[in-house]
Amino acid sequence: MKSGCRRMVLLFGLSLLRATLSFAQTQAPEHPLEGLRSQEYWAVYEVLQASGKVDADDYVMSVLLHEPPKEKVLAWKVGDPITREADVVLMRKGLVTEVRVNLAGRKVESWKEIKGAHGPIFESELFAMGELAKDDPRMQAGFAKRGIKDMTTVECVALPFGYFAVPELEGHRILYGECSDTRGAYLSWGRSIEGLYFEVDAVEKKVLKVIDQDAIPVPQSPINFEEAPAKPRAGTTPIEIVQPQGPGFQLKDGDVSWQNWHFRVRLDTRLGPVLNLVRLDDGARQRSVMYEGSMSELYVPYMDPAESWATRVFIDAGEFFPGGVLRTKREGVDCPSNAEYMDGLSPNEHGIPVIRPREACLFETVSGNPAWRHFEMEQTWGRPSRTLVLRTAAVIGNYDYLLDWRFEQDGSIRVAVGATGVIETKGVKAKTAGEHSMSGGAKAGADDEFGHFVGENTVGVNHDHFFSFRLDLDVDGPNNTFVPHVLKQRQLPASTHRKSIWVAEPSVAKTEREAMMDIHLERPSMWMFVNPNVHGPLGYPTGYEIMPGTTAASLLDPDDGPQRVGAFSAHQLWVTPYHPEELYAAGVYPTASKGGDGLAVWTQANRPIENTDIVAWYTMGFHHVPRAEDWPVMPVMWHDFVIRPFDFFAQNPTLNLPMAP
Amino acid sequence: MKSGCRRMVLLFGLSLLRATLSFAQTQAPEHPLEGLRSQEYWAVYEVLQASGKVDADDYVMSVLLHEPPKEKVLAWKVGDPITREADVVLMRKGLVTEVRVNLAGRKVESWKEIKGAHGPIFESELFAMGELAKDDPRMQAGFAKRGIKDMTTVECVALPFGYFAVPELEGHRILYGECSDTRGAYLSWGRSIEGLYFEVDAVEKKVLKVIDQDAIPVPQSPINFEEAPAKPRAGTTPIEIVQPQGPGFQLKDGDVSWQNWHFRVRLDTRLGPVLNLVRLDDGARQRSVMYEGSMSELYVPYMDPAESWATRVFIDAGEFFPGGVLRTKREGVDCPSNAEYMDGLSPNEHGIPVIRPREACLFETVSGNPAWRHFEMEQTWGRPSRTLVLRTAAVIGNYDYLLDWRFEQDGSIRVAVGATGVIETKGVKAKTAGEHSMSGGAKAGADDEFGHFVGENTVGVNHDHFFSFRLDLDVDGPNNTFVPHVLKQRQLPASTHRKSIWVAEPSVAKTEREAMMDIHLERPSMWMFVNPNVHGPLGYPTGYEIMPGTTAASLLDPDDGPQRVGAFSAHQLWVTPYHPEELYAAGVYPTASKGGDGLAVWTQANRPIENTDIVAWYTMGFHHVPRAEDWPVMPVMWHDFVIRPFDFFAQNPTLNLPMAP
Repeated sequence: MKSGCRRMVLLFGLSLLRATLSFAQTQAPEHPLEGLRSQEYWAVYEVLQASGKVDADDYVMSVLLHEPPKEKVLAWKVGDPITREADVVLMRKGLVTEVRVNLAGRKVESWKEIKGAHGPIFESELFAMGELAKDDPRMQAGFAKRGIKDMTTVECVALPFGYFAVPELEGHRILYGECSDTRGAYLSWGRSIEGLYFEVDAVEKKVLKVIDQDAIPVPQSPINFEEAPAKPRAGTTPIEIVQPQGPGFQLKDGDVSWQNWHFRVRLDTRLGPVLNLVRLDDGARQRSVMYEGSMSELYVPYMDPAESWATRVFIDAGEFFPGGVLRTKREGVDCPSNAEYMDGLSPNEHGIPVIRPREACLFETVSGNPAWRHFEMEQTWGRPSRTLVLRTAAVIGNYDYLLDWRFEQDGSIRVAVGATGVIETKGVKAKTAGEHSMSGGAKAGADDEFGHFVGENTVGVNHDHFFSFRLDLDVDGPNNTFVPHVLKQRQLPASTHRKSIWVAEPSVAKTEREAMMDIHLERPSMWMFVNPNVHGPLGYPTGYEIMPGTTAASLLDPDDGPQRVGAFSAHQLWVTPYHPEELYAAGVYPTASKGGDGLAVWTQANRPIENTDIVAWYTMGFHHVPRAEDWPVMPVMWHDFVIRPFDFFAQNPTLNLPMAP
Repeated sequence: MKSGCRRMVLLFGLSLLRATLSFAQTQAPEHPLEGLRSQEYWAVYEVLQASGKVDADDYVMSVLLHEPPKEKVLAWKVGDPITREADVVLMRKGLVTEVRVNLAGRKVESWKEIKGAHGPIFESELFAMGELAKDDPRMQAGFAKRGIKDMTTVECVALPFGYFAVPELEGHRILYGECSDTRGAYLSWGRSIEGLYFEVDAVEKKVLKVIDQDAIPVPQSPINFEEAPAKPRAGTTPIEIVQPQGPGFQLKDGDVSWQNWHFRVRLDTRLGPVLNLVRLDDGARQRSVMYEGSMSELYVPYMDPAESWATRVFIDAGEFFPGGVLRTKREGVDCPSNAEYMDGLSPNEHGIPVIRPREACLFETVSGNPAWRHFEMEQTWGRPSRTLVLRTAAVIGNYDYLLDWRFEQDGSIRVAVGATGVIETKGVKAKTAGEHSMSGGAKAGADDEFGHFVGENTVGVNHDHFFSFRLDLDVDGPNNTFVPHVLKQRQLPASTHRKSIWVAEPSVAKTEREAMMDIHLERPSMWMFVNPNVHGPLGYPTGYEIMPGTTAASLLDPDDGPQRVGAFSAHQLWVTPYHPEELYAAGVYPTASKGGDGLAVWTQANRPIENTDIVAWYTMGFHHVPRAEDWPVMPVMWHDFVIRPFDFFAQNPTLNLPMAP
């Protein structure tokens, strides 16, 4: 993350009249897990104003739905009363306060100062601190030394360190930043002014330090990608997707029904899309698959030890979510023409709800793939398939992450992340790699030792992307057991026609430690989540399997500061007992954190996880060495994993599909 | 593989008149790599007849295009003369003879007996030997012992051992088989008569042995999946893909052009789709990516030591290809409504070409995914994408493998295999698993020790699928170098803000051994194929990367008979110097082979591979523990990998995409 957005100017203090008007349009939430409605944000705003405890020094970090206890949600039926609460995080001069607001009662329920926590960063703070630094005489001297005289095109931003790297962080809100010169470009990416960095105290609003190293010219390689091409690629003919009777799904107040699937979705400011109560019709029964699923955190450490680069170890959601992680989808680009859209609400830094159009889209897609097929008796038997896609896009500064939840007709869910947007680049002295190696990389002292040239004087810096998905699977009910099946070679007796086979050995993971899974091709395992209390017709417990896709494990030293915060990247799967406050894999306050919260810390207790309400955490990751083709904007790189029924149904559930997709 | 198709009755000896008529319609091939045309098969037929060397005891195993030397193909231009040759394999009483036929000259060029080779199996042979066994009195006694009196519904098939397991194989053509009782079912899958097996000599046409063990009742669980559902799943609304101006690709005589892509495709009897001369337009230049790409072999070992199961270690293409591995695609099921189709030709056991409709389809698909996107300045910038899919379906008895070559606008190719069809099951005494374990598997002596119940008395047996893809990458020309980049942790000095990063270390693989790649998450590598003689504008050699998808390595003992033949499954990537006769990863004659041919054998020479014409072999694989949902027909399970440009283009090649998909 490095935000290149233009500053958003927000005015504080809206009249109560406007708030009241808003309440006049009140429509009550229809479900306990519905996202906060506009009037609920305004209720929070009013309650805070009325508390007498906030003034212009208080900023609202987040206003999130406080989910009712799970057992209450599970017991809730249409018509039952709905309890609504909001969790608010305030920041006042660097100090964090958690406030619980009762929305119907319009009152503060609790007010708690959190010692030692650093709040996440506001976009406006990034730019305000950047502006402050830009005006600092030491920075001005640095610009002059580089021949940069026109300040109009200079943009500076200040970013969190991301972990406890410098002693001055203790008790202070320290940001670290650099500047770009956008002359000739729409955006600042690829135009960094290297060798000139600053450190600011964002509470004191003071530039602490300016580091002026080598003056490296601002790269000039072409970077504009925005304009429609003057001469578009030839040879495309129109292709249209038509649904004359409209979509096959129903979407109302976050409630989605499609074929045999039912689920709820809300757009959370911090987590993005949160799916709840994912259920499947199976004959006359409606059966539970997952209580809640969401991306829990993103961790993007860069791999360059240089000043201002070693500190780029972003916890992309936890550090940067204020204002919301999701951004508007473009019709016909991000989603096909047959998509329907959901708008999103997130509070600004004063807690005022901002509506953003098309934060999510929902569409059916026919890829032309069969659900199944078999050729025999000189005929092909089969059924065409379609998929329901829920898509959002989280945008953290330069990177855009398309987040897909793809529901299949066979009861499986494919969760996919498409990474796109603009890679972070470093300006360097050398114009090109100069044919110094077979493919760049690792040559000591070379400008591309820690990355790869993607343009002249422009090196895309190596980095990782790790995504933690929190999957509160409730297969046929909350109490589940995690049963990894390990595939092991078995030698056969000499009387057999061959020497070896493999066998699948299931074992119950009794505690969190037994459930930490790493992928090894030489000792593969299948990750099964079963309900030991519900057996299918063949005797096995009903279950769902998490099938990993291509992924990666962190290569950093586990003792490294950023790695302690992003420690969820050490394993590809974790399983914890359900705890309503364990939502974020890198902890609630990862900003400048020493790593005392999150998945790796909770699981040190090694809690029991057998036949109880458990939560699976899947880590998707990839290492990224940029290539020329990733510049100036990166083709979407997809990664995915699958959650699929395993002995959940009595047989292939797609035998009843119609003959048309 | 186990073939359940009904016997195809074929008559030998067609009149020369008919052959002549066929020649009257002669149209010469348009390209040296075009698949054999109908009249070319007839030319082979005539040349063989005229040779005086064949009679009714000779069977034609294969008639394959003998590709002209690569350098001649590369030098060939439209209008140049085309040399056409066919490679014919004959089998006469178990002996294999290779014949090269000059098609234009209508003459035999070489005639070579191959000592010690076992030819692949004909479908008609499978059934004929099954019929022979069915009539054997010992088998009849076995049926009677099991209460099976009506022979009308009993079907027997004989299959190859797949490797050298029994001494009687030496110098003989031995098959091994079992029977099913299809009473009440359309197909024989799931209706096996267990405990009764036979061994036949397919040349002597003699039942050598009948093994009659435990009488296990034929499972009766419902298996018919073919009929359209009486009550289709509700809630689907029509969805149509419309291309009013027709497709955006051109397809003529196997030549495909689509946007900036160009390639040739032919449908080979043994390899299925063979892609050639895959090239990309880059400005005014047409640049080479791959000379040839195809699936080279399939290896499907089962994991049950029981009689008749330990020997199921199928080399699915090499053992079973006669008649062709591809089967007809169903419109609207296998391919979308906007697809175009290619018919296929394969010789029958007499060398007579049989035309099969719709063996391949070609279609454009819009998934609704952007090629790239970025949100900034309160706007989303991006381009919608489309994909060109070439799809075939290889059907080896019970299994159907959808084979996709998906061409992307960004210069990448996604190669995908969708496994579907019917799993192989074993009839067992126990009706169900009886809740004896958490999820079945590995309980000693249990009926599901080596598999998983999928129906009553029906156990889906554990097995693997391994696919070897032969990719003759020619990045900007034939001479390429394989450069793996290994990502390694590097500790940083104390002066840095953090302790560790990773660096990418490229190294040139000088020999075949240095190029054997295994996937490990703790020491990841990137597999780069570069042209060391062609450098891009940033100094790096131009390149393509093979990016693995989810895959598997064989868990079998490398010394195990079947594993010696399917040894390509030991590594995920191999690189060899180009050799025109190295086409099949498990060797030319894997049937009953001791493993003296194929990738693992060739690479023992550890030949140099630097800056020369090299071939990449990617192994895709997965372990399959069947689940209830895989029965009675298996939802498509996709696996894929990607070949993508890495510093091949100067920048993201999709910036010029139009704003409509």
